[in-house]
Amino acid sequence: MAIGGSHTMKSFDAELNKLKDMIARMSGLAEAQLIATLQAMTERDSDQAAQVVADDVKVDALERQASEQVMRLLALRTPLADDLRMAVTGLKLSGELERVADNAASCAKRVMVLNQLPSVAPVRAVTRMGWLAVELLKEVTDAYLSHDAERAMVVWRRDQELDDLYSSLFRELLTYMLEDPRNITACTHLMFLAKNIERIGDHATNIAEMTYFLVTGHPISEQRPKRDVSSSTVPNSDET
Amino acid sequence: MAIGGSHTMKSFDAELNKLKDMIARMSGLAEAQLIATLQAMTERDSDQAAQVVADDVKVDALERQASEQVMRLLALRTPLADDLRMAVTGLKLSGELERVADNAASCAKRVMVLNQLPSVAPVRAVTRMGWLAVELLKEVTDAYLSHDAERAMVVWRRDQELDDLYSSLFRELLTYMLEDPRNITACTHLMFLAKNIERIGDHATNIAEMTYFLVTGHPISEQRPKRDVSSSTVPNSDET
Repeated sequence: MAIGGSHTMKSFDAELNKLKDMIARMSGLAEAQLIATLQAMTERDSDQAAQVVADDVKVDALERQASEQVMRLLALRTPLADDLRMAVTGLKLSGELERVADNAASCAKRVMVLNQLPSVAPVRAVTRMGWLAVELLKEVTDAYLSHDAERAMVVWRRDQELDDLYSSLFRELLTYMLEDPRNITACTHLMFLAKNIERIGDHATNIAEMTYFLVTGHPISEQRPKRDVSSSTVPNSDET
Repeated sequence: MAIGGSHTMKSFDAELNKLKDMIARMSGLAEAQLIATLQAMTERDSDQAAQVVADDVKVDALERQASEQVMRLLALRTPLADDLRMAVTGLKLSGELERVADNAASCAKRVMVLNQLPSVAPVRAVTRMGWLAVELLKEVTDAYLSHDAERAMVVWRRDQELDDLYSSLFRELLTYMLEDPRNITACTHLMFLAKNIERIGDHATNIAEMTYFLVTGHPISEQRPKRDVSSSTVPNSDET
């Protein structure tokens, strides 16, 4: 029998719902930050990019609130196994979302630099990557909020698409730099920008794993998809 | 009065100590992974780098154990405020250490590529950055394990050194690439390698903040030092 009467139970459930609401708000904000960054990139709008950088503190504040909420929850009473898993997952998940927003802000900083340089063609491919990341993020949040393990698995598998896009883009950018050294600065910033988007996919994958564990009580047993292979790319090995 | 007798209290303390031991082991392993990577970089030893990549699963396994240990702790009884903070900090801290090891493994992958290419001079500067990161990591772990807020503050402030090294290195690498396109591939991988080391400094800073909060009960009030400014570097803006 749990300690505390039904009154404590009810207030615990209410606090647990508050945590879920906070996470929903956080994921909405992280997603909005990424979308604003992609628009700023397409429209070469540095004011909008600067706004994303400035707004990152809002996500940080939400993460702190979520963390405090988890502490409040855990201090209420010894939670039952499922509730405990909800609370601890909430804590980890808000950390992932904070890092998603961090990655978006890093992208926004690079957009501000890119806007000072002549436009380079691979920007379009990077933006495409970005929209795929938005989709994965949206899907995995819905999976978490609706407690849907199957939907989480779909995101988990689809992260490979993002990794593939990133790997081919990395190669393309290197070639671009080799062809014309005037592209070096822009392409370097684009590489980091793309890497940040690829990282957002990793966070979505982590959230998918957490959701799966939360719903089913056991970790995903499938083999984890291969991650990006760009770190071992040597496109010009013949030339060096 | 806390729920549960002194027997429960004792077992709680024992479990809390187990968590601390796990974190000590994790930080030792993460540090060893980074050191092995730096040695592999200096000695161009791809076998050692491959070993670091392979050993990353060990840190992941320790993180899972730490996470389970926290769950076990929280299920024991409603913890008192200080114990609760210890448990939740342990969870977050093990996540940071897992990411430190992740960064080290990413570096090791790049080292394996660099070893296939002619050596470039900036490798030495990147290794210097790496040793500073090792120092910060060691210091902040000691601060956490010895419950020393002042020592944590020292690490927190010193991360700026790492950011400065990184920013000047980023500029140097761009110049290197512009001077001779044959350096492009190696310098690109070095940039990502340096970025990973800079990230390790960020994790050390996060651990410093957690330690400070754990010991004092309130967050660091000082202004956070400026982070790396490389994302806004345009060294060749005159040339493009």
